[in-house]
Amino acid sequence: MSSQTALNAVWVVLAAALVLFMEGGFSLLEAGLVRTKNAVNVTMKVFVDLTFGVLAFYLVGVHLAFGPDVAHLWGFGPAVAPANVPQAAFVLFQIGFAIAAASIISGAVAERMKFSAYVIIVILVCALVYPLGAHWAWGPNGWLGNLGMEDFAGSAVIHAMGGFMALGFAKSVGPRAQRFNADGSVNVFAPSNIPLASAGAFILAFGWIGFNAGSTLNAYDPRLSSVALNTVIAAAAGGAAAVMVTMMRFKVADPSMMMNGVLSGLVAITAGCAFVSHWAAIVIGLVAGILVVFATGWLDAWKVDDPVGAFAVHGAGGVWGTFAVGLFDTTRGLFTTGHVHLALVQLLACVVYPLWGFLTSIVIGWVLNRVLGLRVSAETEEEGIDVVAHGIPAYNELERFTDL
Amino acid sequence: MSSQTALNAVWVVLAAALVLFMEGGFSLLEAGLVRTKNAVNVTMKVFVDLTFGVLAFYLVGVHLAFGPDVAHLWGFGPAVAPANVPQAAFVLFQIGFAIAAASIISGAVAERMKFSAYVIIVILVCALVYPLGAHWAWGPNGWLGNLGMEDFAGSAVIHAMGGFMALGFAKSVGPRAQRFNADGSVNVFAPSNIPLASAGAFILAFGWIGFNAGSTLNAYDPRLSSVALNTVIAAAAGGAAAVMVTMMRFKVADPSMMMNGVLSGLVAITAGCAFVSHWAAIVIGLVAGILVVFATGWLDAWKVDDPVGAFAVHGAGGVWGTFAVGLFDTTRGLFTTGHVHLALVQLLACVVYPLWGFLTSIVIGWVLNRVLGLRVSAETEEEGIDVVAHGIPAYNELERFTDL
Amino acid sequence: MSSQTALNAVWVVLAAALVLFMEGGFSLLEAGLVRTKNAVNVTMKVFVDLTFGVLAFYLVGVHLAFGPDVAHLWGFGPAVAPANVPQAAFVLFQIGFAIAAASIISGAVAERMKFSAYVIIVILVCALVYPLGAHWAWGPNGWLGNLGMEDFAGSAVIHAMGGFMALGFAKSVGPRAQRFNADGSVNVFAPSNIPLASAGAFILAFGWIGFNAGSTLNAYDPRLSSVALNTVIAAAAGGAAAVMVTMMRFKVADPSMMMNGVLSGLVAITAGCAFVSHWAAIVIGLVAGILVVFATGWLDAWKVDDPVGAFAVHGAGGVWGTFAVGLFDTTRGLFTTGHVHLALVQLLACVVYPLWGFLTSIVIGWVLNRVLGLRVSAETEEEGIDVVAHGIPAYNELERFTDL
Repeated sequence: MSSQTALNAVWVVLAAALVLFMEGGFSLLEAGLVRTKNAVNVTMKVFVDLTFGVLAFYLVGVHLAFGPDVAHLWGFGPAVAPANVPQAAFVLFQIGFAIAAASIISGAVAERMKFSAYVIIVILVCALVYPLGAHWAWGPNGWLGNLGMEDFAGSAVIHAMGGFMALGFAKSVGPRAQRFNADGSVNVFAPSNIPLASAGAFILAFGWIGFNAGSTLNAYDPRLSSVALNTVIAAAAGGAAAVMVTMMRFKVADPSMMMNGVLSGLVAITAGCAFVSHWAAIVIGLVAGILVVFATGWLDAWKVDDPVGAFAVHGAGGVWGTFAVGLFDTTRGLFTTGHVHLALVQLLACVVYPLWGFLTSIVIGWVLNRVLGLRVSAETEEEGIDVVAHGIPAYNELERFTDL
Repeated sequence: MSSQTALNAVWVVLAAALVLFMEGGFSLLEAGLVRTKNAVNVTMKVFVDLTFGVLAFYLVGVHLAFGPDVAHLWGFGPAVAPANVPQAAFVLFQIGFAIAAASIISGAVAERMKFSAYVIIVILVCALVYPLGAHWAWGPNGWLGNLGMEDFAGSAVIHAMGGFMALGFAKSVGPRAQRFNADGSVNVFAPSNIPLASAGAFILAFGWIGFNAGSTLNAYDPRLSSVALNTVIAAAAGGAAAVMVTMMRFKVADPSMMMNGVLSGLVAITAGCAFVSHWAAIVIGLVAGILVVFATGWLDAWKVDDPVGAFAVHGAGGVWGTFAVGLFDTTRGLFTTGHVHLALVQLLACVVYPLWGFLTSIVIGWVLNRVLGLRVSAETEEEGIDVVAHGIPAYNELERFTDL
Repeated sequence: MSSQTALNAVWVVLAAALVLFMEGGFSLLEAGLVRTKNAVNVTMKVFVDLTFGVLAFYLVGVHLAFGPDVAHLWGFGPAVAPANVPQAAFVLFQIGFAIAAASIISGAVAERMKFSAYVIIVILVCALVYPLGAHWAWGPNGWLGNLGMEDFAGSAVIHAMGGFMALGFAKSVGPRAQRFNADGSVNVFAPSNIPLASAGAFILAFGWIGFNAGSTLNAYDPRLSSVALNTVIAAAAGGAAAVMVTMMRFKVADPSMMMNGVLSGLVAITAGCAFVSHWAAIVIGLVAGILVVFATGWLDAWKVDDPVGAFAVHGAGGVWGTFAVGLFDTTRGLFTTGHVHLALVQLLACVVYPLWGFLTSIVIGWVLNRVLGLRVSAETEEEGIDVVAHGIPAYNELERFTDL
């Protein structure tokens, strides 16, 4: 085995481990941001990603995404790994990406979606929806990749698409009871556990270094270190911007907004981390941090209920990050070089992935609603899904017996 | 320093860091699964593994396990590292393995074992019991290794042995008060903190990639990537199977079972991850996930109380994983090649390690019970060990003063 | 790109990721050790480190610390990375170090410092105070480095300085209400969440392997593995010593002390991890573990209130670790070789860094107190900073609406 392949195996496997650990981050973030009575349920949904989602992508999705190209639209056959990267390492890394896309949905539909419906959604997303989208940009000969689209680690392919799937499913399942009042005003439910949510945000930020730098899939890529640095400074800029905007608008330094600002900076730099300079990374993060505060408000205006801000972080941040590459790419960006071609291609991606994510989720949501039902009963929602579907509340400080 | 040694040093040190981080996983998983009044105590026990356990293995155990062979039964002298691996990296990685074996016990004896007794048990396990067992399979010239036994990362050496030590000590210390009723029925105490437990499970799954793939102890091992992939898909299969069985049997998707299903899949693939193909990894994980649900019930029938399911996960999953190598090994397995020799050797390991773990724990438990007492007083058990032995409850939402 | 540079990039980026993840450790440790009513606030302070701190060091500090030398006192210009290490990887790793120094302060001033004052402190520490100190020992041609001072990963530069900044700011902001009684006795507030704090301690210990071994900044450094091993066994010795001393003095195995013992062992070995032998690492850890218990008491005598023990861990442990290199260095130590020179230089460092940290923090504290006010109002302190400054309590088990 060559030194190059050995080092690549170590690099990609460790990066994949970091990406997979992000599932723990999603789980804690979401369990902390929802109400106590549904914290077990949202945790279990992330375990669904890690189990059914992994199997669906491994058994089906990876072939569609990374198999030899058919008609520039999908793949068919064993995944084609980059040169000098062991195929198993490549597949493992892509598993981490696929279930990250699915996990974005889990928060947006928290507190009212049926567990069984979520299992089916994850299987469909990991087996079909995400793989097709991934093929277009990253597969051998995908049509958007062929047009020159740049999305280094997935602002469009994972986050914009995942964020708009989150939007579509949140719309399909409807808002939580009591979320919107008849007069149009909004009730904000207090997150149940801020330190838990912050643990999730730190894990996500940690894993994101593997997510972005690992996307080199090549330890010898001279951009590797710069990608990691861009990732961290964009996250810092996003969090700083979000907390400043929040303090100006609401007079408090809201913890959910600060976390979502950091995450939004991470989402936005994900497309361009290998293509933009460090100052541009800071600008991209700053804009993402401002955007996340406003995007959170848009959902209220649209009367869509997204308990953890998944759309604001991944949808809005992902679209911004995708487009930003067209502005700041060091060799082809509109602002940096005056060329317009890349910006237009990125704009196209900003339409394609959100549309693909939104439409597929609306269709899947519509069908599932008829076949199985998307939503728990009003009584279950009132009582909390934890006790009804999982037999136990999240926290039991007093001693009690359970049935299991 | 050669490139090969440098890369191996990086690989083994980072894998060791992941394995050591699993202690955090054990701690959170167990603190979440026990009752609130003993959450500090079980956390402190894992810190005992990380302190006294590390020192006992470093000062004594590693020489017995990996020193030059004496009579095929134990080692004597400085640990013998593989070629091109710095000795310190090798020793560090093995420290992580030794304290993982000890940590398996901590959950099974939770909520009633004396803190001082646990300290002594950890020292004995890390200095003597585990090292001897490790030498047989992995030491230079150990007798089971010489027979051709295969246990890549320790389904037998760590998990089956640790799981049966957990069983032996749980039996020695007796069940928690109120656990078993006079009529033979069982009371299930609700876990205190499910999101905390899930954080532990995610950390364990993350660390396991280092645990298994790191066992190559060689970045140039062509199996490295495949080991990591097998680890993750077996975990996925274990979790998926466990939750489906649970939903069929109990009509709820129990979170402890889903976590233990994932962990059981990880335990079971640990022996064979480098020897079996990907489809076999999924089968091994599926069976482990089913097994863990039933094994949890066996303990009730045996009237042994294991608050976190350590035996079901590590004991049952470890024995299954050890035997499964004999069935699915790609070059010597019974199902894959028709050869019977490896299956018989693995069967022998399935007897030796459980027996070694169970007998030593019964003997140590018996002696400690006479010399020191294994169990806290009934009053302490009723009040909770946290306040009595550690001076503080786990959660103090209201302000209070302590004596320390 | 050469193999050497590629491997170094992978190594330094992954080590930097581990160091940055330590911020999550600080956050959880501190949120668990303070009272519930200020858990959000202390978490948010660590997010300030990760955002404003990162930007301040990246934009200003790194040039002062690692730019070409001016007068042996500070640097000016782009950071000078070691040979064969990509500059971005080096800068990223140093960002992790800078914000770790700032994070030490957050715990000591918890529960009564204004959020806005903390933001400014972090910016000043990361842009100016820490970079100057770092330059003296680690910058090209810094005056203490030129004298032969040894501080491999920062017992002096980060921990002693950070610990004494923590002391200075804790003194400047004054003790929490009700902490000290008129008769000189001390009220100890119970930590709010021990399992959360333990999660933080495990994350810190995990990250510390990257912190120390990553300081090789060179995968080919033959000391790399030994550094990692020294780190872990010193941590083990620190925790074991602290819990034994605590049990003897207070009759209980206090969890905060055990965690702080582990951390103190880590702090103390940080200077010498590449220079001392394994037995010396254990001795250094043992002493640090004993020291942390007594140093916690000193603060009470000085009437300084440090809610999480930041001074005892980082200040006392850092000074001890810095001096210990002078005693145990394998080629120049007083005990190991009889040479006195290194011990004297280390002693000088044990004066310079604490003094620099303490004086700058007293000055900054004095100015900020006049300009902005360091401390929240008595009413806010009584109610808790979480609700007043962040609009939400840490834990909301019952449903409630918020304003945001």
